[in-house]
Amino acid sequence: MSFYRGLSRISRNLRGGGSFNGSRFRSLQFLASHEHHSSMGSAEKVRSFVFTKGLPALHSSRYKIHQQSHSISEDELDPFSMVADELSLVANNLRAMVVAEVPKLASSAEYFFRMGVEGKRFRPTGMVDVCISLQVLLLMSTALNLSTPKPPHHFDQGGSVATDLRTRQQCIAEITEMIHVASLLHDDVLDDADTRRGIGSLNFVMGNKLAVLAGDFLLSRACVALASLQNTEVVSLLAKVVEHLVTGETMQMSTTADQRCSMEYYMQKTYYKTASLISNSCKAIAILAGQTAEVAMLAFDYGKNLGLAFQLIDDVLDFTGTSASLGKGSLSDIRHGIVTAPILFAMEEFPQLRAVVDKGFDNPDNVDIALEYLGKSRGIQRTKDLAIMHANLAAAAIDSLPDSDDEEVKKSRRALVHLTQRVITRTK
Amino acid sequence: MSFYRGLSRISRNLRGGGSFNGSRFRSLQFLASHEHHSSMGSAEKVRSFVFTKGLPALHSSRYKIHQQSHSISEDELDPFSMVADELSLVANNLRAMVVAEVPKLASSAEYFFRMGVEGKRFRPTGMVDVCISLQVLLLMSTALNLSTPKPPHHFDQGGSVATDLRTRQQCIAEITEMIHVASLLHDDVLDDADTRRGIGSLNFVMGNKLAVLAGDFLLSRACVALASLQNTEVVSLLAKVVEHLVTGETMQMSTTADQRCSMEYYMQKTYYKTASLISNSCKAIAILAGQTAEVAMLAFDYGKNLGLAFQLIDDVLDFTGTSASLGKGSLSDIRHGIVTAPILFAMEEFPQLRAVVDKGFDNPDNVDIALEYLGKSRGIQRTKDLAIMHANLAAAAIDSLPDSDDEEVKKSRRALVHLTQRVITRTK
Repeated sequence: MSFYRGLSRISRNLRGGGSFNGSRFRSLQFLASHEHHSSMGSAEKVRSFVFTKGLPALHSSRYKIHQQSHSISEDELDPFSMVADELSLVANNLRAMVVAEVPKLASSAEYFFRMGVEGKRFRPTGMVDVCISLQVLLLMSTALNLSTPKPPHHFDQGGSVATDLRTRQQCIAEITEMIHVASLLHDDVLDDADTRRGIGSLNFVMGNKLAVLAGDFLLSRACVALASLQNTEVVSLLAKVVEHLVTGETMQMSTTADQRCSMEYYMQKTYYKTASLISNSCKAIAILAGQTAEVAMLAFDYGKNLGLAFQLIDDVLDFTGTSASLGKGSLSDIRHGIVTAPILFAMEEFPQLRAVVDKGFDNPDNVDIALEYLGKSRGIQRTKDLAIMHANLAAAAIDSLPDSDDEEVKKSRRALVHLTQRVITRTK
Repeated sequence: MSFYRGLSRISRNLRGGGSFNGSRFRSLQFLASHEHHSSMGSAEKVRSFVFTKGLPALHSSRYKIHQQSHSISEDELDPFSMVADELSLVANNLRAMVVAEVPKLASSAEYFFRMGVEGKRFRPTGMVDVCISLQVLLLMSTALNLSTPKPPHHFDQGGSVATDLRTRQQCIAEITEMIHVASLLHDDVLDDADTRRGIGSLNFVMGNKLAVLAGDFLLSRACVALASLQNTEVVSLLAKVVEHLVTGETMQMSTTADQRCSMEYYMQKTYYKTASLISNSCKAIAILAGQTAEVAMLAFDYGKNLGLAFQLIDDVLDFTGTSASLGKGSLSDIRHGIVTAPILFAMEEFPQLRAVVDKGFDNPDNVDIALEYLGKSRGIQRTKDLAIMHANLAAAAIDSLPDSDDEEVKKSRRALVHLTQRVITRTK
């Protein structure tokens, strides 16, 4: 599942309140789960080195999901309700922006932005998830609303600078959404996917032509919107993201046998494909607010670790599905020859699994053999543990932000922390 | 033919010197060819209104190709030789930039940048044209090297500003090339083209997947390079270009019957598809040099009019081919249902042609009928005349630049003017 669509689903589930009952959360501490410590593999060590820069006090090990120390009502923690009005505004801006000079393209680009309004409340239609990372970015905007946020000055010539900080931050959310949808559209062409999330993909319905063009159109609109912010650092950040999305896709497409079996390669690819967009967008939100480099890095760390945690759990769910038992997932990754964290961990315990992976998974028997090894190994649990570690790092980043007495700021931060927990406890 | 590839070919032909013998050129004046004046249609009037803004003294009418007043040796006017070393440098930068982290993608993205070195002289291989608009942009850089060029100051935070003006202008040339090649790659996917210029297109050889990704990769590199220039006005200009390329393509894809028969719609589409990139890149060159808005507009006008002239001649050649007789061209536009200037002009003389156009050209008989009307009309000649007008406007823009005593500046300007003549006298 796409990280961004998934987040949207999580927040809707949360709003529905089905599985979440206002449980007590304790404040963020990192409680090593010592009984698992000895089994920590080299891969986690590599990752804890690579991915905890900027949070030096943290040690990677086994972590429990940490809880906040005070009772919080379900409604207070619902990220969706907290930004519902603004989401509606941003989504409408997005729709307006997508209306191009050529109606045919506008309607196709809008395909992924369709949404409905239910009563007074903005809500994505069941068919196509919207909002995506918009919620995270809007919450982050409030969470970074420190005592003296001042946008940096711009002396460049030409154009008019949007002066309202919040409007500029909303613009980042819109740009993020456009880049994300553009990458989905092009991914559809790439994968010759005839379905995405159960509905006919745009390229199937309208042809590759329109899918490529609609993606290019969204990218170009994102570039124009980005340029209008007149902040070259932000432009650089988000330009890099587009490059990361492409690099991540190509890393997955063309790997050597050794790369396929490397946890470091896997995590780098995952960062590019899943975490770069949200992490750099969070950082852009901070930069626009004129925050310090330290605060910008914490915002980045939140997005990066949230994205990584999400993807690791996604990898688990691809094996387990909702049933939590091995082999009940869609197994789509392994069947497409994509080797993810659970298999990589299993390989550390059972080096003979490497030979199976090297043969590839075109033969269903090989899939079965790999699943057998995975079942005997601690691959699933270690992947979950790694996801928990990243979720906790995300929460810690929020916890490390400069103190604020502002209730809105505190509430937004709690909602962001809460999202980190939901990412790892989700079952679909 | 693509404008950019075509320009490259023109300059190579010029270098070869086959059809060009150092003829005398008189200084740029606009000599109305009165015998044709009365036949000027509403379309020209619309265009002369729309496309001569910034050059108010010019009147659109019938123009002859104008000549410079002094003898110029063939070698002096060869745009290719004037910037050969720098072209080589820029092309090598481009290749280096294209070398991505993933070799498979880098090699595919490099597909369109292949080139050879012949002796000491950079030269595109026969198979794939390179250089494209690089020459125009490098010549423009020198042509705008006025007495006190000073790059605008940048106060934005982050990154380092490339201080050397020429390096920054070369960067614009590279970015332009990347955007152009990206659009070609995606166009190939769009058209399901299995050949481009007689060779197997990348998407045919490597699949749509790689063609889309390679295009995205080039676009993202272009964005990153653009951001590194840290000039928000330039970022805005080139972001708009990407949007124009998409808009132009969609305007061609999805037209109403009335739009298909509208000269204004046709010229707008042509600007988006062909002239926007070169015109805005020329403008960016001027902006980086810290030139006035007036000089930047003249640079823009040069690129715009050169691009429009090129495309109008391309439309003629699609009908006439090298033989200069009707029906000997490839007729690929009309066979694909694309109505271009010659037919639009013919329709002004023979309104009954509209019914034929409305039926479409899936039926070859309709193509024959349209050609018959075209042959009876002045459509071809009027298209050539319009091309000459735009070529002259381009030359006039160069002529309107502030005077310079610098010999290099003057030489570059002459080469730019010379290109305008070559664009309209080419036969392939």
